[in-house]
Amino acid sequence: MSTPIEAVEAYLAETAAERLEDFKAFLRIPTIGSLAEHTGDTARGAEWIAGHMRRMGLEHVEVSPTGGNPVVYGDWLHAEGAPTVVVYAHYDVQPVDPLELWVRPPFEPRVEAGRIHARGAADDKGQVHLHLWAAKAWLETQGRLPLNIRYVIEGEEEEGSPNFRTWLDANRERLSADLVVVTDTGFYEGNHPALTVSLRGNTYFQLDVTGPAQDLHSGGFGGMVQNPANALIRILASLRDGEGRITVPGFYDEAPRLGEAERAEFARLPFDEAAFAAGIGVTELFGEPQYTPLERKGMRPTLDVCGMWAGFTGEGSKTIIPAHAHAKFSCRLAPGMDPNRTFERVRDAILAVDVPGVEVEVGRLDEMWPFVVSPEHPAARTAAACLKEVFGEDPYFIYEGGSIGAVADFDRVLGLPIVLLGFTNPDDNAHSPNESLVLDNYEGGTRTVARYWQALAQD
Amino acid sequence: MSTPIEAVEAYLAETAAERLEDFKAFLRIPTIGSLAEHTGDTARGAEWIAGHMRRMGLEHVEVSPTGGNPVVYGDWLHAEGAPTVVVYAHYDVQPVDPLELWVRPPFEPRVEAGRIHARGAADDKGQVHLHLWAAKAWLETQGRLPLNIRYVIEGEEEEGSPNFRTWLDANRERLSADLVVVTDTGFYEGNHPALTVSLRGNTYFQLDVTGPAQDLHSGGFGGMVQNPANALIRILASLRDGEGRITVPGFYDEAPRLGEAERAEFARLPFDEAAFAAGIGVTELFGEPQYTPLERKGMRPTLDVCGMWAGFTGEGSKTIIPAHAHAKFSCRLAPGMDPNRTFERVRDAILAVDVPGVEVEVGRLDEMWPFVVSPEHPAARTAAACLKEVFGEDPYFIYEGGSIGAVADFDRVLGLPIVLLGFTNPDDNAHSPNESLVLDNYEGGTRTVARYWQALAQD
Repeated sequence: MSTPIEAVEAYLAETAAERLEDFKAFLRIPTIGSLAEHTGDTARGAEWIAGHMRRMGLEHVEVSPTGGNPVVYGDWLHAEGAPTVVVYAHYDVQPVDPLELWVRPPFEPRVEAGRIHARGAADDKGQVHLHLWAAKAWLETQGRLPLNIRYVIEGEEEEGSPNFRTWLDANRERLSADLVVVTDTGFYEGNHPALTVSLRGNTYFQLDVTGPAQDLHSGGFGGMVQNPANALIRILASLRDGEGRITVPGFYDEAPRLGEAERAEFARLPFDEAAFAAGIGVTELFGEPQYTPLERKGMRPTLDVCGMWAGFTGEGSKTIIPAHAHAKFSCRLAPGMDPNRTFERVRDAILAVDVPGVEVEVGRLDEMWPFVVSPEHPAARTAAACLKEVFGEDPYFIYEGGSIGAVADFDRVLGLPIVLLGFTNPDDNAHSPNESLVLDNYEGGTRTVARYWQALAQD
Repeated sequence: MSTPIEAVEAYLAETAAERLEDFKAFLRIPTIGSLAEHTGDTARGAEWIAGHMRRMGLEHVEVSPTGGNPVVYGDWLHAEGAPTVVVYAHYDVQPVDPLELWVRPPFEPRVEAGRIHARGAADDKGQVHLHLWAAKAWLETQGRLPLNIRYVIEGEEEEGSPNFRTWLDANRERLSADLVVVTDTGFYEGNHPALTVSLRGNTYFQLDVTGPAQDLHSGGFGGMVQNPANALIRILASLRDGEGRITVPGFYDEAPRLGEAERAEFARLPFDEAAFAAGIGVTELFGEPQYTPLERKGMRPTLDVCGMWAGFTGEGSKTIIPAHAHAKFSCRLAPGMDPNRTFERVRDAILAVDVPGVEVEVGRLDEMWPFVVSPEHPAARTAAACLKEVFGEDPYFIYEGGSIGAVADFDRVLGLPIVLLGFTNPDDNAHSPNESLVLDNYEGGTRTVARYWQALAQD
């Protein structure tokens, strides 16, 4: 007699063709959540998932309304004594423009050279789909799941999850669980299995410097008044040194110190600095010299001007002192840092710069909390072990430079440990034309998830 | 029997009504030189002046073509042994928008409360007109001028005299003279008579900083690459200190040292700093603390950002590292400074800033030489004496912050002493809606010019 996992894997092998056709049907629904003309398609995508959930035996299945696209919820809670997991993924996809760059129509999925090509194949409908079938394989072969699962499949991730936090707050009670598994990340460059163990946060600023009531002639007034553009430059320049270190008092106080183990983990990541620089069109990389580029991206905060404007920006010369000057900038936050304290510290440093004769205002446009889970957390170690069983190599631990709004929301609202377990390959063209997913990653991902549920139940 | 100047002044008194009607006829021609739909009007204005010149007995009168609007030339060269003066003024005027702010139609001149109201009344058609009648008074009453005069009345001053230098070069031979009198300036605040004795020059820069091939995600790349906007800020901030002093090596080497006499002259100028600041909408003035605001404006160079732009400038937040960043800035030059050396010094200082991973380019968009004449120059002293005779008070000497392209051109091409003798009041709204000219200034200006020709001949 076979073990449960052998039966599950045999079922998956037998249903390979059926699963692929089912996956294609899901991919054919153009769930571009951000476009009004696809609101109906997006709702249809949600219903498609809900129907799947009902047929496979999940309970409390609901297409749950939000201020925008709905969240699909479904659970199975009969594994008494076993842990409960919230699974998060999303069914909305990025727009497809520029359409002319697609080799195949984005919503007519095709399998070629070991990949399935379609918008959403990787981000994130493929990962939604493999979760559904991993659970279905257990339910069909064993009549049960190894643990309790609550599925939360969102429809606005590509827009920054604007309604998700409100939904989470309202549904906090039915989301009681021990762990959140987020499946919206992927493997490391070269398609090496990986677990994302941290995300940076963000505090987004706008700086407005206002001087004279109107633009002044630079001849008639130059030397008599503070120029708002010069003042803005002076302020922003005072916040960083020439090596990229941020000089705001206290800025790094809560930033993590990189231990030997973490630095060794970073050093283990394959990274060709020259090729990376060439790939983005710069002659060399730049940043705090005592850290490697990957350490800086993963574990160091930043202060990057995202935009600025003042005065005359047309062709030729116009000799004015601009009446006002503006900049938008973002501080990415290392794990442990607090967007509010960061805002206050940077604001205070700005307001402490002596620029007589102009008015300085500092506004906050956005914030996102950072996230980190220890690679030593049992749920992370178990995920790593399952990845190794299926893909044959120890996964890398990725310290990601960006943010995922929903992860910060889960962290802040539910306060649960979170594992970011995803299976896409960095060359999948997520967000770009010609998105695809490597079928081996899809199949391996399905089996990894099926094993992970059992392994978590046995932990 | 009356003296020549008594006869001239009697003639001016008798013709007051006729002169005013003639002035109005000139003002009715909408010589907006920069607007294509007024090209015909502008040409008509030139012909109007040429007709006047011919009727009053000037010779070699010519509407002389340029690449743009014509220059009106006319001379009278029969004062053997007397000096020769080139008189410069301009007949083109500023556009009139916003038209809805004008209390009276801009090209329907009206006299009210001691002023004549119309576009160009002050800048510069009133000053053209008073020159014509000052000479006419001499010719009508004495049959001669006290000295030789070549009139050069330009039609593109409000556009920065783009074709004037070429015209000057081509007409260098027929402009042989001893002195240039430029009539395009005015009196000091409070309508005190004044002579402008210096103009600042200008070197206009564009700074372009280029980084990655396209905008990068500030999460995925922040901390790994040099941000072109941050780099541009660092570069520009390095050029000035917090008190407005320019830190470019050698920048001030040719800037004049203010002697006791000059500082005393500046100190004599009435200047209410608080009222001036309030008038332009700032809480306080700003600049190198060891100089007064008027000294800084008149005799100190500047480095003012006129415009800058980079990355995202819309509503809300977009988390990018911009691919490139740009600034335009102007260095006003004190008398004695060289636009070319200034360009080289600032460029070298910019290129010396260490900003690895971006490309930095420095371009020059414009340049203008500074100008200065000593208040002790005989032609200036004589002008001052005539102003005092007519207006009853010693004129102030004004060190102007701006530039007049034609003055720099005269200085460079002809190498002659230049006197800037003008009669407008600072509150005349030149360049703004509701331009006007104080009639007492117009009448006094006419008599001052008439006396000046005689005084120069007797020097």
